Amino acid sequence: MKKINTSPISGTQELLPEIQAVFDKLKTGVAEKYRAHGFMNIETPILERCEILFAKAGGDTEKQIYKVAKTNETMEDATEALRFDHTVPLARYIVEHESDLSFPLKVSQMGENFRGERAQRGRFREFYQCDVDVISRNDLPLFYDADVISTLLDAFSTFGLKTPVLARISNRKILKGLLSGLNLQEKSTDIYSIIDHSEKVPLEKTAAALDEIGLTPDEKAKILGFIELNGKPEEVAEKIREMGVENTILKEGLKELTEVAEYLTAGGLNNFVADMKIVRGLDYYTGTVFEFVLPEYRDIGSVCGGGRYENLAEYFTDQKFPGVGGSIGLNRLFFVLNEKKLIDLESKKPLDIAVVPISDKENAYALKVAAEVREKGSSVTVVAGDKKLGDKMKYASKIAKSAIVIGDAEVASGKYRIKEFQ
Amino acid sequence: MKKINTSPISGTQELLPEIQAVFDKLKTGVAEKYRAHGFMNIETPILERCEILFAKAGGDTEKQIYKVAKTNETMEDATEALRFDHTVPLARYIVEHESDLSFPLKVSQMGENFRGERAQRGRFREFYQCDVDVISRNDLPLFYDADVISTLLDAFSTFGLKTPVLARISNRKILKGLLSGLNLQEKSTDIYSIIDHSEKVPLEKTAAALDEIGLTPDEKAKILGFIELNGKPEEVAEKIREMGVENTILKEGLKELTEVAEYLTAGGLNNFVADMKIVRGLDYYTGTVFEFVLPEYRDIGSVCGGGRYENLAEYFTDQKFPGVGGSIGLNRLFFVLNEKKLIDLESKKPLDIAVVPISDKENAYALKVAAEVREKGSSVTVVAGDKKLGDKMKYASKIAKSAIVIGDAEVASGKYRIKEFQ
Repeated sequence: MKKINTSPISGTQELLPEIQAVFDKLKTGVAEKYRAHGFMNIETPILERCEILFAKAGGDTEKQIYKVAKTNETMEDATEALRFDHTVPLARYIVEHESDLSFPLKVSQMGENFRGERAQRGRFREFYQCDVDVISRNDLPLFYDADVISTLLDAFSTFGLKTPVLARISNRKILKGLLSGLNLQEKSTDIYSIIDHSEKVPLEKTAAALDEIGLTPDEKAKILGFIELNGKPEEVAEKIREMGVENTILKEGLKELTEVAEYLTAGGLNNFVADMKIVRGLDYYTGTVFEFVLPEYRDIGSVCGGGRYENLAEYFTDQKFPGVGGSIGLNRLFFVLNEKKLIDLESKKPLDIAVVPISDKENAYALKVAAEVREKGSSVTVVAGDKKLGDKMKYASKIAKSAIVIGDAEVASGKYRIKEFQ
Repeated sequence: MKKINTSPISGTQELLPEIQAVFDKLKTGVAEKYRAHGFMNIETPILERCEILFAKAGGDTEKQIYKVAKTNETMEDATEALRFDHTVPLARYIVEHESDLSFPLKVSQMGENFRGERAQRGRFREFYQCDVDVISRNDLPLFYDADVISTLLDAFSTFGLKTPVLARISNRKILKGLLSGLNLQEKSTDIYSIIDHSEKVPLEKTAAALDEIGLTPDEKAKILGFIELNGKPEEVAEKIREMGVENTILKEGLKELTEVAEYLTAGGLNNFVADMKIVRGLDYYTGTVFEFVLPEYRDIGSVCGGGRYENLAEYFTDQKFPGVGGSIGLNRLFFVLNEKKLIDLESKKPLDIAVVPISDKENAYALKVAAEVREKGSSVTVVAGDKKLGDKMKYASKIAKSAIVIGDAEVASGKYRIKEFQ
């Protein structure tokens, strides 16, 4: 009988071994693709100084940070907390190790982050993020925006999804320039947030929200027309130019968007579109922004996102470190893919071979056989114990794809047979 | 100029990319060996309910537990904390998922644990542990004690150490039975702790400590003689039998020790000894106990440890789950191996190939070449930007083992050459 509640706490992931094996494959797949694309892995600690995490104060994030303290300490004394993303620790890392790093620095980070969000289905408070970033000093070629997007798209290719993935790309300079050209820059915060939200509500609601902040019918029509634009980047850019708004930043944004698209095409990709609904809430994005979706499952929302930021470490140093990066949230992704049955969970048998000695007499020989087949790259266990052979085989069939039975005859002959479980 | 202290907090590990690559190799090596030996990986959350972690209350561990709370909460309200090892969460996991698991369950766990110890050189507060455990219901064959030890020894074989590793093995029943046979069971707690400490102090100190707790000269001589015993298990067992102490538990311990040794030998291992100094402080060990050392570097202390516990989950359930397991603390190990120069850190170049377009005109073609060589399994980056070729090559030589330069000629001919950096 249980003496205590043994469920894992809400907002965390805990899987049975055979499901964990599938999750681990996603992890490994992502890590290998990141490396294949020339990203070097680093690990920053989970524990960070509060002053680092709170440097850019304010907002929901701050309320969600978990501080830590030992049993005999009080919260007010707490000077350390759990990182809530990989970007802030990366900024600290870059400033700290600057003189030992070669720029542009292409880095990946894989690991747990923590946010004290209200727990709800498919939302995690402890979540595994897989990030790639390219950081430079002073300036960073646009080439790397495409590098990050294509690396992330390639990572998705390892998941064996039963549905396509699409990268939706925009550039923050386009909307910024457009609003400036329309003389709406003072309402830009509101407009960004309305556009960010527009995906989840009917068009009328978005229109009403734009009315509410005092846009003229003409302005409203322009914005609504703008956010409906999506498709081939050069065609979207052309349509925006046809709006006739003159603005330097807008022009720059369009140029950047089409250049990134050209690099993606050159790299052999075609599963991307320009989409003017993409703004990404975070205010540190300054150029390219992107989100990945599964077009056949729009309700899932974004499964990957990122963008370019002109100044990664502005709270930690006067030096300018522009960067571009993106992140896959693996727990949420795994959760929704499972729910929609978009990945195969059927490999219910985590091990390749179970070596089954008929009695303890054959244990020693079973060890030799196990070492032999293991040498060839299989995962192998020996099923010991004085149970009946039938029971051992039943157990073996649950954990392994095949079995090798070792009895007197096998020991004497030195020969054995691999039996596949159906 | 820095605006803030950007060093990682004390007691955490943070490495440059080229050193991280070596650390990651250790990680991957361990994970692969664990899997090869038939251990299935699981991940329990880092965040745990306080009542789980504090179930077995008392001791230093309790003081070292990090509780977590959000910014607007107080420490008294905290109900969650960071796990301090993998064993407690494993016990919870087993009880929670019992009906969905096949026993004996062979599991591995790899991940960060946290202890608020006083920071000192080579001691970590956030540390990466690599555990293997075999858990059963009611009883668990001794075979698995050898299984765990040989798996851990094999994991060490992937590190490419320049010095041998030795497993020192004992069985808690031997000392328990001996003390009982000598009628010293009431002093056993003191004696365990004196033996546990005996390695770090001269023999006289150990002798004096045994005097202090009131042992007779004869008893003292027996204990001192006992803890000096080490070598081939059957020989050590024989010497203990020659002490003439009659006790059933002692006999059982000797039988278990020699049986485990026989399985290790059968598995082709010879880098292990019986060593009566090994007791392992933790009081939940009840049978086999072991520690690994690097005999040429005794001052490093134990680099791996574990043992058998009769009742893994006694604080969570009435059911009996015996287990045997062990753990490699990868941060401390890496730290000491580095310090003693026992692993090669020389592969200073994390990437295989840098593709270097001479100008932006060749970027698109460089992407094609990169995809081509990546296809063959290399890690490849493209060095973009309008810098001089010399500067790009200098950068490439820092991050990659070889380079492919792409200019007009390469684009025209479709041919390219891989240049190795010396």
